[in-house]
Amino acid sequence: MAIDSARMMSELEELSCIGRTASGGVTRLGLTAENAAAKELVARWMGQAGLTVRYDAAANLIGRLGGDGPAIVLASHLDSVIEGGRFDGPMGVVIALEVARLLAGKQGELARPVEVIALSDEEGARFGTGFFGSRAMLGKLPPDVLDRQDKNGLTVAQAMDKLGYPPHKIGQAARDPGEIAAYLEVHVEQGAVLDQLDCPVGVVTGIAGPAHLQVTLQGRADHAGATPMNLRKDPLVAAAQVILTAEKLAKEISPTAVATVGKVWVEPGAVNVIPGLAGFSLDIRDVEKTTRDALVQSILAILQEVCSARQIEWASEEHLCVDPVPLSSRMQDTLARACGKAGVPIHNMPSGAGHDAMVFAPRVETGMLFVRSRGGVSHSPEERTDETDIAIATEVLWRAVMDLAL
Amino acid sequence: MAIDSARMMSELEELSCIGRTASGGVTRLGLTAENAAAKELVARWMGQAGLTVRYDAAANLIGRLGGDGPAIVLASHLDSVIEGGRFDGPMGVVIALEVARLLAGKQGELARPVEVIALSDEEGARFGTGFFGSRAMLGKLPPDVLDRQDKNGLTVAQAMDKLGYPPHKIGQAARDPGEIAAYLEVHVEQGAVLDQLDCPVGVVTGIAGPAHLQVTLQGRADHAGATPMNLRKDPLVAAAQVILTAEKLAKEISPTAVATVGKVWVEPGAVNVIPGLAGFSLDIRDVEKTTRDALVQSILAILQEVCSARQIEWASEEHLCVDPVPLSSRMQDTLARACGKAGVPIHNMPSGAGHDAMVFAPRVETGMLFVRSRGGVSHSPEERTDETDIAIATEVLWRAVMDLAL
Repeated sequence: MAIDSARMMSELEELSCIGRTASGGVTRLGLTAENAAAKELVARWMGQAGLTVRYDAAANLIGRLGGDGPAIVLASHLDSVIEGGRFDGPMGVVIALEVARLLAGKQGELARPVEVIALSDEEGARFGTGFFGSRAMLGKLPPDVLDRQDKNGLTVAQAMDKLGYPPHKIGQAARDPGEIAAYLEVHVEQGAVLDQLDCPVGVVTGIAGPAHLQVTLQGRADHAGATPMNLRKDPLVAAAQVILTAEKLAKEISPTAVATVGKVWVEPGAVNVIPGLAGFSLDIRDVEKTTRDALVQSILAILQEVCSARQIEWASEEHLCVDPVPLSSRMQDTLARACGKAGVPIHNMPSGAGHDAMVFAPRVETGMLFVRSRGGVSHSPEERTDETDIAIATEVLWRAVMDLAL
Repeated sequence: MAIDSARMMSELEELSCIGRTASGGVTRLGLTAENAAAKELVARWMGQAGLTVRYDAAANLIGRLGGDGPAIVLASHLDSVIEGGRFDGPMGVVIALEVARLLAGKQGELARPVEVIALSDEEGARFGTGFFGSRAMLGKLPPDVLDRQDKNGLTVAQAMDKLGYPPHKIGQAARDPGEIAAYLEVHVEQGAVLDQLDCPVGVVTGIAGPAHLQVTLQGRADHAGATPMNLRKDPLVAAAQVILTAEKLAKEISPTAVATVGKVWVEPGAVNVIPGLAGFSLDIRDVEKTTRDALVQSILAILQEVCSARQIEWASEEHLCVDPVPLSSRMQDTLARACGKAGVPIHNMPSGAGHDAMVFAPRVETGMLFVRSRGGVSHSPEERTDETDIAIATEVLWRAVMDLAL
């Protein structure tokens, strides 16, 4: 039996109709009826492919092939962000299912069982509870998770209840990591690195941990006309100097390090008033914790230097600090060998974005394969991955699983 | 009779009770019942001082001393911005009234009549129709002014009607500039220059004309984690570079030139997304039109250079462009002589902010005297000018008027 990429494209098309938006994008948030419907569709395909299908207590959809013992888990997610695309998540599920179909004929030969899993609420776009399904499976959900509310005040517990999952049983989703021999996740890159290199796939070496800071600078609001340049305490010009320098520092410290200012604001925010206050967000990442932390420190040092020279008061708050997660070198080798057998170049790269693989990696042998995103577009209706690249990724994953499971 | 600065302070206190806010500031917008009440109070003081009082068709309050012929006009305004202070505007009216009191005893000697005028709606905080009274008096109101709406949809015409001014008679407020021998306005500086120099008053040489631009930069929104620094088209970093350079260019081109970025925004504005779009406002001023225009051009040239290097698209829109207005050198000399006689240092300075004097200057001999603003604070409940400085400004204005009117 051969890889049927046309079927995978039509499965992605069919999934994209659930939660389709006017702009042609997909809004299918975690823990909603739409996402449950998408899982039901995949559950039907799993059944047709000969997998044994079940849902766990966290609404993770699990299709299993083969007998007892630790399984090779092939996972991704079906939920989207608001106005997302059709590939981020579902592509990994559809590829995993296609690999399971390829293996179904060889069930007798399988030394290890294989599971295809659609994990619940990876994006966390509704409740701010990203990696919900994977954290439930590893017993790592925070204690207050059931009380988190969406923008309408509905809690996670109420949303679960509505979908038929008793919230108090959420703990039953936790598995012994020993049940999982390996975890492999295929995902769109969400960046333009593979596209620029003309590589169909990339082997992920580790997942960069983001540090999120919020910086505020307090100067003095003054009349834009009546205040000469040399009498100003303009916090926005100071912020501009830091924003510009942060770019330079990130470029200098490492090719994998990134620093991003995604939000900026001023007060009072009038054309003819020098701002009294300026603020901005910082998202700083690297696959190496030491590099990431050094970049944070050097940006804060520049902030101090600039503000001191300009007599501006500043403060910074850490809103998030996730350690970078290295992925299993054994899985990297397995995926690299599979690339070799499939005749595609091996490109090793970090993941700048977070994935369910981060949750598994500390406890389970974990690997990730990236597939080229055309133009690097992500979290957008314009996100696109080509059929030929999906076919290649399927072959690479299939060869990796053969290596591990046969 | 001597200058009674204590009375002036108590008049300012009494005026500040009309439209007083919870924070201790003043919100007394133009063309409102509150501002009409403030004018009525001043009209009463004018009558007590022996002035002949009238309102014109634009609700300008005019108190006249002396006989026929072109008058020396001493003017300012009583309306405020939202949450303004008690000095910006009223101080000029109270000082003009005090000078009129000093002259009232010398009516027989006056070679020229003197008028004290409280001009309507200088700030334009309600309808965006700043300099309403002065423009009406010079016949320079735009044709659509009566249709302008406040935030509740009430028009200028409706507001005038409510106050008993038939809007269709607004044209009757226009005067022959020949009726005005000279126009003198005393106003708080609204900046910190005099405070820094320890000067009580300043002679205004000209009023800087603002150019307001809105700049937008279009880059590419990308995932903050998945997009390496070298693959980004970040419009905010480009904007930061321009904001920082604009400060440098303004400092270099002239000590009187200023460039201010008072508003800044990004889209989509998420911590973990590289902005796709960034925008900012520019307020660029100088007393010399050629310098102001050269500064605008050099900032646009840097914008072009930065955006071209970063492959960012940009656009700029001119939202306002007012030519700088030089003030009468005869009036500058008169005020400088008056400073000399009063024994205070003569400091010549531009006005970065706009004033009613701008409207009179092209047609009438126009002069302005600035009075020190403590800390340069303006358009704020914290705005403050000392009683001793008010007394000095009163003496300077009185001596200037004696020079012109006797």
